Amino acid sequence: MVELTSYVAAPLCGLVLRQLGADVVRVEPIGGAPDRSRMPRGRQGASLYWAGLNGGKRDLAVDLRRAEGRELVADLICAAGPEADPGGGVVISNNTRYEDLGFENLQARRSDLVHVLLTGTRDGRNAVDYLVQASTGFPTITGPGSGGTPVNSVVPAWDIAAGLYLAVGLLAAVHERRETRRGQQVEVALEDVAFAAAGAVGYLAEAQLYGIGRGPSGNEVYGTYGRDFVSSDGTRFMLVVLTLGHWRRLLEATELTDAIKAVEKAVQANLDDETQRYRYRAVISGLLETWFERRTWNEIDRILAPTGVLMSAYRTFNDLAADDAAVLRQNPLFQEIEQPGAGHYLAPGSPLVMGGRQFGPAPAPVVGADTDEVLTGLGIDPDRIARLRADGCVA
Amino acid sequence: MVELTSYVAAPLCGLVLRQLGADVVRVEPIGGAPDRSRMPRGRQGASLYWAGLNGGKRDLAVDLRRAEGRELVADLICAAGPEADPGGGVVISNNTRYEDLGFENLQARRSDLVHVLLTGTRDGRNAVDYLVQASTGFPTITGPGSGGTPVNSVVPAWDIAAGLYLAVGLLAAVHERRETRRGQQVEVALEDVAFAAAGAVGYLAEAQLYGIGRGPSGNEVYGTYGRDFVSSDGTRFMLVVLTLGHWRRLLEATELTDAIKAVEKAVQANLDDETQRYRYRAVISGLLETWFERRTWNEIDRILAPTGVLMSAYRTFNDLAADDAAVLRQNPLFQEIEQPGAGHYLAPGSPLVMGGRQFGPAPAPVVGADTDEVLTGLGIDPDRIARLRADGCVA
Repeated sequence: MVELTSYVAAPLCGLVLRQLGADVVRVEPIGGAPDRSRMPRGRQGASLYWAGLNGGKRDLAVDLRRAEGRELVADLICAAGPEADPGGGVVISNNTRYEDLGFENLQARRSDLVHVLLTGTRDGRNAVDYLVQASTGFPTITGPGSGGTPVNSVVPAWDIAAGLYLAVGLLAAVHERRETRRGQQVEVALEDVAFAAAGAVGYLAEAQLYGIGRGPSGNEVYGTYGRDFVSSDGTRFMLVVLTLGHWRRLLEATELTDAIKAVEKAVQANLDDETQRYRYRAVISGLLETWFERRTWNEIDRILAPTGVLMSAYRTFNDLAADDAAVLRQNPLFQEIEQPGAGHYLAPGSPLVMGGRQFGPAPAPVVGADTDEVLTGLGIDPDRIARLRADGCVA
Repeated sequence: MVELTSYVAAPLCGLVLRQLGADVVRVEPIGGAPDRSRMPRGRQGASLYWAGLNGGKRDLAVDLRRAEGRELVADLICAAGPEADPGGGVVISNNTRYEDLGFENLQARRSDLVHVLLTGTRDGRNAVDYLVQASTGFPTITGPGSGGTPVNSVVPAWDIAAGLYLAVGLLAAVHERRETRRGQQVEVALEDVAFAAAGAVGYLAEAQLYGIGRGPSGNEVYGTYGRDFVSSDGTRFMLVVLTLGHWRRLLEATELTDAIKAVEKAVQANLDDETQRYRYRAVISGLLETWFERRTWNEIDRILAPTGVLMSAYRTFNDLAADDAAVLRQNPLFQEIEQPGAGHYLAPGSPLVMGGRQFGPAPAPVVGADTDEVLTGLGIDPDRIARLRADGCVA
């Protein structure tokens, strides 16, 4: 399949498919796409961000401002049949600039074309993750809420979800093509992905039915009992009480059963119910806070591990890289790669494990690394490739 | 396909498939799963969160603590062939409690079984989104960073991404089954999904190569120029300068071209480069802040719209619900549903649009709504259904 993509979401779609075994050719503007040098960067300047999203893909550098360049790319997209290559006639794009590479024109050349397109908003406006965060509500209930300022998340959650929705749509369309021999366009708007999530967790329904009264959440889990604490030796950790069993064993282990019984009597509530635990979380937290402040993280971990209560210490990215990345090394998700222009490091493969098979990471290509190979595969002879290169149409 | 799921990620996988047309039967503990009543709730007590994740599914209430109950569910999972039903022999689960509903035992009954399993961590520990947030680094660079406290995001980004990875794996496995007639287990660990994202954006590589020196990001976009501002009339909005064209037109529109030229001379940098804009963002922000403070949001929007600079005002969930949810009504993603136990509201369908087809929302079932129908479909006669119900094995 062919990628005409930049930034996070659409390249992630290609990465997910590549990790499942697809041949993915990125079509790259000569010199690289606008985000090709985005920080953070490796020692020789290669973007670690770009490398992370484009591992294992092939790379064709071509000037799309030229009709001849676009014609080559259209040939590439429309080459080979689905019998020979289930990824043939499949294109992933977040680019609507060039009409001759749009769905209608490509479909006229190949009726079974699957065209997977990311847009910003449903009505066609541009958007990026931070904008979608602002327009869909979540930052206004995120963070400690000092001064009523919304807090954006550094996790590009909507980009990631959009990339995965594109991959779902791509697989469903290829599936359908096998039955019908017809292609189709698959569209996802970044903003719709965030709206769908806000609907899925009930926040849009809640606002329509009542309005949402609560303010920013801090680090408290909404609707159940969970928040962050600090041990006597300064380890900050997240604790979540997911089940009634957790709750009862947590009280036993911290010797708070009687105190909580007295609290229940005083406020006339049954804290076995998670909704009540959420309502009276300040009282619970006050008691637990004191218990945690008097114990080291090792003691806390030792005493609470048998309760099943969910706990995890906060880690920085530097913590994850400490001791030669010992934490990452333990996890078979990670393997060492040598990334041209960046160096040697542990990179994650796909989180999908299928039939016990793990799909490992691979270095990203350098711009135009596969130009000759891709063009030769299209039946273009060496003389014409040399001419295209001399003309600056490919690189 | 059959769902043995709770919380967010695994039910989302089923929802995505349901919205693509699959018949999805939820297997529900009698009285509902632990998260069945999670807040927020509708007027008659139905969970809006649960409803948001389970729209359009069928529901079988059965006591899985009984061997007879588990046997019924195993029959349901293993019924019908993939020729008759591509969703037959497919199960989505985040539950490893019952061995007879695990992959090995089900596969012994049906060799083409596709078993899609969510776990917490790769090594089998339980985890939830907030824990995974803590263990994988992002909260330590999120938010304003007052006092060095990490900030969790209220967006369950890892749940959402994990649910979508499960859907990708499910479709890929069903695809493969058509070729090979063999099934397989598809596994995703919630924590691995977050690690994969931290790798994809280059943060893990950066930490391994140098350590990450920067502190919390506030609302500034890392690596390019973007942050939040406030207009003279108090509208807070996000602004992102994505391209060189945006940058130049923003300076013209705000009459800051000369000031920025002088800044470039003073600091000896070329702010046409996005990395330099990121580096000198404090200077740029100081200039822009003053310009924005002197203009209303309407003026800002009018003057900057032609520049292409990306902007969006922050909206609360209540803003989205205001004026009879006018913002949501404009978007064909949303349709009105009547949710039993909750009321009438606009809910989102799938963000996937395929061949112009939109997959709308549907109400979630009530517990056991489809028990009779599902059991009858398994060839169980009314007498036995009545007996199972009287015994409390189904409801």
